[in-house]
Amino acid sequence: MKALTRVLGIDPGSTITGYGVIDSDGVRSVYVTHGHIRVKGESFPERLGHIHEAIGDVIDHWNPTSAAIEQVFISNNPMSALKLGQARGAAITAVVSRGLSMAEYSARTVKQVVTGSGAADKSAVQTLVKSQLDIKRVVQVDAGDGLAIALCHAHSALGGTRAIMPTSKRRSRGRGLRW
Amino acid sequence: MKALTRVLGIDPGSTITGYGVIDSDGVRSVYVTHGHIRVKGESFPERLGHIHEAIGDVIDHWNPTSAAIEQVFISNNPMSALKLGQARGAAITAVVSRGLSMAEYSARTVKQVVTGSGAADKSAVQTLVKSQLDIKRVVQVDAGDGLAIALCHAHSALGGTRAIMPTSKRRSRGRGLRW
Repeated sequence: MKALTRVLGIDPGSTITGYGVIDSDGVRSVYVTHGHIRVKGESFPERLGHIHEAIGDVIDHWNPTSAAIEQVFISNNPMSALKLGQARGAAITAVVSRGLSMAEYSARTVKQVVTGSGAADKSAVQTLVKSQLDIKRVVQVDAGDGLAIALCHAHSALGGTRAIMPTSKRRSRGRGLRW
Repeated sequence: MKALTRVLGIDPGSTITGYGVIDSDGVRSVYVTHGHIRVKGESFPERLGHIHEAIGDVIDHWNPTSAAIEQVFISNNPMSALKLGQARGAAITAVVSRGLSMAEYSARTVKQVVTGSGAADKSAVQTLVKSQLDIKRVVQVDAGDGLAIALCHAHSALGGTRAIMPTSKRRSRGRGLRW
């Protein structure tokens, strides 16, 4: 087993931001922690500040050396896109202001790497994340997405975009986008 | 003249973020500085980090005690809204992470307070900002918008939403939204 890299995956949202932290050598991954930030604050600048500070606290506490985020599915609602963009800006700047690089992966690539199928449904992703990381307890869905993104980044950037559990169905055609 | 408050106005954008700083007692305002940040960085997380850091540097250097931003005009393009949201999140968190409050005003209120008409065109706003602050040189347009937002906040929050230069046409019906 190669040296382990600590990876933070973030799933930002304007009301809940999930995150997951794993250690990985690109082939084997070990669960470290996960959680979700329920955004607090009376005003929207305060709420953005809360996301920014909470992600900063996660980084300061767990010391990941690499981070990743999912590319956004753009809805038809520009106001939702703006709010999500603001939350992403708050989370991303917490990462890059600490000198960490930030990778970005499409939802399809995350699914492809974690489950072997880019068309997998959300519950399959959550189930395989828990199984892969040997987590027995209930994982809040946004935190599960954070762990999925961390797994995707670990296995794409460190392991050459290989699927986590090779099966005959599994072909890792999706490439993680390095930034 | 009452004690002066130093106000930062920010006009965030995904390519250029303008800002302006003034000292004001709510009736009289004095120009301090203005500038624009041309966003740099190869990746979008780097670019957001650049906005965040540059606005942080402005705050650390000029020490405003209050800040304001313009409410966003939401276009029909969700991708543009997302990018603008990310830039706003990067700028806003630079403000609130330093413990400053952040006010938000509609474009109409900014125009109303600065020119006396919520329907004023952009060039009228820029001209009146320069005249009000006695600025002789050319001001980049996003920086001019930053100064306009600072003036709006100063005269709304400190001066009771009074128009800067009362005329018969000028009625300050727009209320700045405090957050």
